[in-house]
Amino acid sequence: MFPPDFYAVVLAGGRGTRFWPLSRKNVPKQCLSIDGGPTLLQRTVSRTGLPPERVLVVTGPDMVEPVRAQVPGVEVLVEPSPRNTAPAIAWATWEVARRGGTGCVVLPSDHVIADEAAFRASIAHAAHVAAGGALVTLGVRPTRPETGYGWIEPAPGEGKDLPVQRFVEKPPLSVAEEMFAGGRHLWNAGMFVWNTRTLLDAVRAHLPHTAAMLDALDAGAALADVWGRSDATSIDFGVMERAQGIRVVPVDFGWSDVGSWPALLEVLPHGEGGVTVSDAVVARRASGNVVHASGKLVALLGVDDLIIVDTPDALLVARRSDAQEVRLLLEEVERRGLGRYA
Amino acid sequence: MFPPDFYAVVLAGGRGTRFWPLSRKNVPKQCLSIDGGPTLLQRTVSRTGLPPERVLVVTGPDMVEPVRAQVPGVEVLVEPSPRNTAPAIAWATWEVARRGGTGCVVLPSDHVIADEAAFRASIAHAAHVAAGGALVTLGVRPTRPETGYGWIEPAPGEGKDLPVQRFVEKPPLSVAEEMFAGGRHLWNAGMFVWNTRTLLDAVRAHLPHTAAMLDALDAGAALADVWGRSDATSIDFGVMERAQGIRVVPVDFGWSDVGSWPALLEVLPHGEGGVTVSDAVVARRASGNVVHASGKLVALLGVDDLIIVDTPDALLVARRSDAQEVRLLLEEVERRGLGRYA
Repeated sequence: MFPPDFYAVVLAGGRGTRFWPLSRKNVPKQCLSIDGGPTLLQRTVSRTGLPPERVLVVTGPDMVEPVRAQVPGVEVLVEPSPRNTAPAIAWATWEVARRGGTGCVVLPSDHVIADEAAFRASIAHAAHVAAGGALVTLGVRPTRPETGYGWIEPAPGEGKDLPVQRFVEKPPLSVAEEMFAGGRHLWNAGMFVWNTRTLLDAVRAHLPHTAAMLDALDAGAALADVWGRSDATSIDFGVMERAQGIRVVPVDFGWSDVGSWPALLEVLPHGEGGVTVSDAVVARRASGNVVHASGKLVALLGVDDLIIVDTPDALLVARRSDAQEVRLLLEEVERRGLGRYA
Repeated sequence: MFPPDFYAVVLAGGRGTRFWPLSRKNVPKQCLSIDGGPTLLQRTVSRTGLPPERVLVVTGPDMVEPVRAQVPGVEVLVEPSPRNTAPAIAWATWEVARRGGTGCVVLPSDHVIADEAAFRASIAHAAHVAAGGALVTLGVRPTRPETGYGWIEPAPGEGKDLPVQRFVEKPPLSVAEEMFAGGRHLWNAGMFVWNTRTLLDAVRAHLPHTAAMLDALDAGAALADVWGRSDATSIDFGVMERAQGIRVVPVDFGWSDVGSWPALLEVLPHGEGGVTVSDAVVARRASGNVVHASGKLVALLGVDDLIIVDTPDALLVARRSDAQEVRLLLEEVERRGLGRYA
């Protein structure tokens, strides 16, 4: 299905404080199972359908152990420090090329995709397009006027791939509503496909410091010695918004970035009382709750729209509409010297 | 403080389904710690100030193991089957007499008493009154027009003990409000003090079947063979409401029968977010909650008036005003074949 020597680069550097108390300092979001099965990272790797030796996972030094433990047999690249996505992606694509890879897909590690076959078909098509020399981004068909994502405006027309007219940074609501109503714009979900040569040429054209880092790596320098030279910017801003000939493949495979606990209502089947990850659930007059309590019976009585997250040493009960404040609660936990729970 | 050869009889037969999931089939309410310290039963025994050999605990055959484990050194009497309080109390008082005890206090095992010194002073006074030949009941000064308790009407007058004019069964609200407003009536909390001889004479006068059981025990019969002969009735209805010369000692020592989870708001100190039994609590915009999650950090965000009870295998989250329905939820748990959690 994929071209020979096609790789996947999985970005696993994020932390995801909004999934506390399930996510922790040393258990980042991508290492969580949100449904009681394999973790988000494990699902990301397996969903590619690629053999482990053609997957590279990129993460930071503080998370290398949990990440490595999750994907045995997969090579884990460790970026010396966080410098946004452009240096990590440029370096990882360089590593793909060094291994003889001709192309790759770049994937976030903490998203959910419902239809894995459709996902692989989209990647295969994108790889076909990329083989023609384009940088390809996947554009998710929007389901709401979301202001928290970047959007992609394709050139007018129909097709399995289209030229990108422009990228739209996180828009104000009125603009998001207009784009959503128009039906043409797509969400930028941070998934890219390219030939290694195409991307490395684009980096050399638009990110001279990162290009210098790659040249130094070519010349045998150690990554730690040259990492700091790279441009600390995002791949979107540093490359995609500047390069020519970008194409987008519209996709519709049940994508969610599961940005916070309420997103589980979108990606997990609804049962009694809401969405519940547990051994069993018994509810009376309860609805719209998001419950994560693996290994337990959960009993709900007269409660609606709550987030309930149980772990061996911490229990969170929050109003669902306050989900964005979980981060502030976590800061308070740290402030009170309870960092062992953070 | 107490007379020589004075005993305590502690009734530990109840189950307390309303404290599920902390209470279980084999962990009745009296075996729970509601504040993270000793259990209600342990506190009941220690609060008497009596040496263990002068305390008798009465329970049923299905609960003898957990009860015995909680009060090492205390003799546990096992009633063959539940027959309400009169047979158990008559038999236990007979056992006190057989051990040479001249008087005893009878106590429920699942109540909370804030002021233990005041409690012991009240018992000592009641024992003094009982030595004069009266059956003595303790009357709790009411703090609300409660319709769930029986009430005691003392004869008019003041004093550390008063004749009982009559017992009032669980009253309708209008009657409860009238009694509460009047300021004379007291709550019947099921705590009694008497000389063994006085009580056994009253049983012989008012409960002929139970008297026959005691006679058979005197003659050397085995309890299991004669238990079924006793009158299956309450001590209140069978003896106290019929006997003459009952006196009441008004008491005011911070009593609560902690009948359900919300009662913890009355008996435990209030902290962040409500009343929380846990290792630590961090709350934002949360109040009036009752939380029991021993050994954990509890984080509350934007939630009010909830009951949150965490145990190793079950988690309950309920609206506080629905506390009386916990029993129905538990029935549903059983009905679904989840009896291992009941």
